[in-house]
Amino acid sequence: MVAVAILAAGRGTRMKSDLPKVLHQLGSRSLVERVLGSTTAIAPSRRLVIVGYQADSVREALADYPDEIEFVDQTEQLGTGHAIQQLIPSLENFDDDLIVLNGDLPLLRPETLSLLLETHRAKGNPATLLAAHVPDPTGYGRVFCDENQILTEIVEDRDCTPEQRLNDRMNAGAYCFRWKDLVQVLPKLNSNNEQKEYYITDAINFFDAVTVVDVPDYQEVLGINDRAQLADAYAILQKRIRDRWMREGVTIIDPNSVTIDDTVELEANVTIEPQTHLRGKTTIKTGSRIGPGSLIEDSQIGENVTVLFSVVAGSVIHDNAQIGPYSHLRAPVEIGQGCRVGNFVELKNTKLGEKTNAAHLSYLGNATIGNRVNIGAGTITVNYDGVKKYPTTIGDRTKIGSNNCLVAPITIGEDVTTAAGSTITEDLPNDCLAIARARQVVKPGWKRKDQ
Amino acid sequence: MVAVAILAAGRGTRMKSDLPKVLHQLGSRSLVERVLGSTTAIAPSRRLVIVGYQADSVREALADYPDEIEFVDQTEQLGTGHAIQQLIPSLENFDDDLIVLNGDLPLLRPETLSLLLETHRAKGNPATLLAAHVPDPTGYGRVFCDENQILTEIVEDRDCTPEQRLNDRMNAGAYCFRWKDLVQVLPKLNSNNEQKEYYITDAINFFDAVTVVDVPDYQEVLGINDRAQLADAYAILQKRIRDRWMREGVTIIDPNSVTIDDTVELEANVTIEPQTHLRGKTTIKTGSRIGPGSLIEDSQIGENVTVLFSVVAGSVIHDNAQIGPYSHLRAPVEIGQGCRVGNFVELKNTKLGEKTNAAHLSYLGNATIGNRVNIGAGTITVNYDGVKKYPTTIGDRTKIGSNNCLVAPITIGEDVTTAAGSTITEDLPNDCLAIARARQVVKPGWKRKDQ
Amino acid sequence: MVAVAILAAGRGTRMKSDLPKVLHQLGSRSLVERVLGSTTAIAPSRRLVIVGYQADSVREALADYPDEIEFVDQTEQLGTGHAIQQLIPSLENFDDDLIVLNGDLPLLRPETLSLLLETHRAKGNPATLLAAHVPDPTGYGRVFCDENQILTEIVEDRDCTPEQRLNDRMNAGAYCFRWKDLVQVLPKLNSNNEQKEYYITDAINFFDAVTVVDVPDYQEVLGINDRAQLADAYAILQKRIRDRWMREGVTIIDPNSVTIDDTVELEANVTIEPQTHLRGKTTIKTGSRIGPGSLIEDSQIGENVTVLFSVVAGSVIHDNAQIGPYSHLRAPVEIGQGCRVGNFVELKNTKLGEKTNAAHLSYLGNATIGNRVNIGAGTITVNYDGVKKYPTTIGDRTKIGSNNCLVAPITIGEDVTTAAGSTITEDLPNDCLAIARARQVVKPGWKRKDQ
Repeated sequence: MVAVAILAAGRGTRMKSDLPKVLHQLGSRSLVERVLGSTTAIAPSRRLVIVGYQADSVREALADYPDEIEFVDQTEQLGTGHAIQQLIPSLENFDDDLIVLNGDLPLLRPETLSLLLETHRAKGNPATLLAAHVPDPTGYGRVFCDENQILTEIVEDRDCTPEQRLNDRMNAGAYCFRWKDLVQVLPKLNSNNEQKEYYITDAINFFDAVTVVDVPDYQEVLGINDRAQLADAYAILQKRIRDRWMREGVTIIDPNSVTIDDTVELEANVTIEPQTHLRGKTTIKTGSRIGPGSLIEDSQIGENVTVLFSVVAGSVIHDNAQIGPYSHLRAPVEIGQGCRVGNFVELKNTKLGEKTNAAHLSYLGNATIGNRVNIGAGTITVNYDGVKKYPTTIGDRTKIGSNNCLVAPITIGEDVTTAAGSTITEDLPNDCLAIARARQVVKPGWKRKDQ
Repeated sequence: MVAVAILAAGRGTRMKSDLPKVLHQLGSRSLVERVLGSTTAIAPSRRLVIVGYQADSVREALADYPDEIEFVDQTEQLGTGHAIQQLIPSLENFDDDLIVLNGDLPLLRPETLSLLLETHRAKGNPATLLAAHVPDPTGYGRVFCDENQILTEIVEDRDCTPEQRLNDRMNAGAYCFRWKDLVQVLPKLNSNNEQKEYYITDAINFFDAVTVVDVPDYQEVLGINDRAQLADAYAILQKRIRDRWMREGVTIIDPNSVTIDDTVELEANVTIEPQTHLRGKTTIKTGSRIGPGSLIEDSQIGENVTVLFSVVAGSVIHDNAQIGPYSHLRAPVEIGQGCRVGNFVELKNTKLGEKTNAAHLSYLGNATIGNRVNIGAGTITVNYDGVKKYPTTIGDRTKIGSNNCLVAPITIGEDVTTAAGSTITEDLPNDCLAIARARQVVKPGWKRKDQ
Repeated sequence: MVAVAILAAGRGTRMKSDLPKVLHQLGSRSLVERVLGSTTAIAPSRRLVIVGYQADSVREALADYPDEIEFVDQTEQLGTGHAIQQLIPSLENFDDDLIVLNGDLPLLRPETLSLLLETHRAKGNPATLLAAHVPDPTGYGRVFCDENQILTEIVEDRDCTPEQRLNDRMNAGAYCFRWKDLVQVLPKLNSNNEQKEYYITDAINFFDAVTVVDVPDYQEVLGINDRAQLADAYAILQKRIRDRWMREGVTIIDPNSVTIDDTVELEANVTIEPQTHLRGKTTIKTGSRIGPGSLIEDSQIGENVTVLFSVVAGSVIHDNAQIGPYSHLRAPVEIGQGCRVGNFVELKNTKLGEKTNAAHLSYLGNATIGNRVNIGAGTITVNYDGVKKYPTTIGDRTKIGSNNCLVAPITIGEDVTTAAGSTITEDLPNDCLAIARARQVVKPGWKRKDQ
């Protein structure tokens, strides 16, 4: 079965970063993870990642990758050909095809690598390379081939004649080799060039016939060399994701202002308002309307929920709840059906039952709150004594007055009422009224200094 | 006088929705309302809407439409020609021109239908159809005509030869017929085709001469078949609206990030900051600066008002007021001249006089507040006892202390001062100081557990 | 040495504004300031600004411009030639080159004016004009020249033959003249044309040879005539700025949603999230992540700071601080290393020491707060008595309870604890506990009216 090798040893100088280029994030995944992700359809038997610059960082970043990865060291970075030479010990007994991918090709589709592999096998040549016609090939190596898609020449941009420069077919940096043929020519590479590097494209010159496969969508093979190209790639990725969801029946009012991670799942008839960002393992059910101005991360949102100008992380929100404007839900949070969590309300590690409201200016932390409870405006759970956090429990149908402090640990029963302005420090049984405030004193005829 | 028939019977499968396609919203109006709106310049004597899928929903959605609408049932959806056949009983005595419009053409301009009708009458042929040269005609029927704009052929995309496919003139789905001629050919339509449907385009084949009118702006005739096309149409509509207001002297810093309903009215020298959304019956006067990050709905905003990162609905805001950041004004609200409503403040059903401030962390509901009042930070009107809402009234020049609760119903006079941290439960006369808090007790030498 | 004259006398009718066109803002600077800024590389010995419509406003707007400006009055606006005629008295003894720039050319790069001047001097002709090939030259004067870049003709758009109209080389409105030659021909201009105006382009006809310099990037010479063109210019300017920072190693997730003033400085490995706006003299150090949904103005932000959905103005934020979501920092503010300023918190004229938290629903004004202090949720500094503002001082390691009012002027010592719900009115020594609240009273068996 096919093996895949990913070139991930370079620093990527133009990224202007200590972080290796392949570890830069695109959406919520690194470039190298995305390249690995593009190999799913070809189901490689082996995944070799060639590491060099900050090799340990790359190893660590991929430590939890679901498939097994073999790391191959390229201690000096002497070019792509040199990188492939490092594979020889690892592939000593390997006798099948090897796909070689630049680590900065995060937009490749799995079906494109299938096409590369299938064409390679069908044509039977020792090597096959991926090419694409691009609107602006400046800076890229140009691929020339005959009418049978057999390579005639690859010419680096700097070596192009003016006429060659007009060829808009670029070398994508993705190859399929018959390994036993490649391993024969690898020792013959030399670095007699201006950069003093060994090039994988030189290996290709040793073969009699090399097949060229053109990718129909050139955006798949745009590489990442600086942050502007990283942003371009993100825009392409986002357009793919948004178009997919719109085809599935999601209304996105202003698609260009919205970002959606590819780990998000949406049902038909969800509406995404402008300037909304859906990240991580988030799911949203039908009829819900999210945004404008909202950031949702790792949350499950039920049907007919509205979220307006809010930040929601690690939360489960059941059907018909209304969140915001200006709420912050901090993991873990669970919001029952039909709740209203409103203006300037922060919840942390808190669960609300059904039809419970915390509509204004409140902070609820470490709280377990029943059904049909009303949390008055300005209510604070005093859950932290400077050392530990303590729980607050509130029973069904209880009504907490405005500007209350609930000093945890505290348990408040069902059908309780607390008076506005109270600081509740001791547990309250069911069916009681609690008051903790001073009587009103009036001094008539009093004037302020300013009058 | 001309009659208009709108084809609104289809489901629109690719919308992936139970909602009929023509009821999807574009801006704050449905597709079918927009198509009806495009007929204003031709002032039709009759408006016939052909309904089928969820006919009652469409009827209901148009129940309040200002002009009279006749609904015609198409109980089975057997094609556009079949839809028009259903008009025969309704138009029994009709003897003028009929304009037929697909219900998913929300971007048609009124002047385009005028052009269609005038050309139809000037040329005197039994039928006239609207066409447009489009950048990508894939999927659309192609219109072929001679140098006199006389139709030679309409070919569906799937029936095009490769050469015909290069014709970029598409059939827009908007027609003008001399009804007495059309009614002659309608019975002759057949469904001998792959889809087993009756096509209005077949009717056209029975006429000797059909005029073709090209729409100069092809964007007017882009149909809506899925949510991506709905989003594209919204972008086109928004660009029209924004360009109009910029020509009228409105500064829009980053137009692509802004959405403005076509029901909004702006004066010259308004500035719209990025990520701002103006919806419904909103008016904004000169010198005001709205945004970034604001949502304004059904509100009247005076001169030289600033709104920053806020949500404003159903509100009247007088000149020189400053709103936000992070305010939420909930209908009905009235804000007097020169007020400051500030950070983390929510107003509901509340009126502020002139030069009154509610600058920080407050909730004011059912409140009527005078001039030059200062509402201290953290003030809450306790307007809800779990059953009913109660009013709060505050007189001119009164100064409410920080973190006050005002327990409604309550009337607070003029020139009153309340102490910080007070819960005010009883009415206060003019010129008094009210205090409702405990004395400060200090325990020296005290250490917290954590130290 | 070269002199520069800027045409700034026009109203700019299509701006629909009382403000002179050259005073409209693009980014944080006016058009005329930007035109002046484009002359930095040629370092003119004299800067003449020709003013007319609202001359005093233009004078005032440039009063603080760092280089000396001579204002020349054009009391009647009789055309560009007439404007230049007004320079004659001021330049009586001047004997060098004069660059003339339309005041609505804010996108000119300094190197382009260097190119204009150098070419002018190299070619030795009496005049040189800037031209550019533009995608849509409609409305602009067309420039015709021979193969040696010698002008043959300038034709106004309205005077173009259909064939001339196809020429896409437009007159940019930027010229270099040998003043002693220009001054000879200025008296010969006439206003025998439809507009009854004197044109600077007519002066050019009197010269034997005029050099044409083509600007490679046509966007530099797009003029501003209405708000739509102002928005287009802003988009071009923003793209330049963002591309520059991305090349320098700044990650901008969704560049089109971000605006950055050209007075901002960013380090590599800063991340700018969507819908974020950086304005004024703002600097941000490496590792910081700003946004989404944030507005930063005139602030210094250290390393590894996060700012989420917040408004920050005139603030210094030290390393590792976390701001937001939903904070408002109002100048002057200083936030120490490792602080957390959180949800619904407003700071005004306040300094926090290191590792101090004000995490929820607080207003702190005129406060000086030590290290490792915890400000409880809902804390308000009562800093305003209706006339003056008073200071609050809090010592290290003190813990302010939730929903506290701190009535200023007040000094609270180190290692103090205040109880939740307290209003603190008197100074507190070190190492004490302060309580100012009523005892809790419970009425068992109590039922609300609604039950």
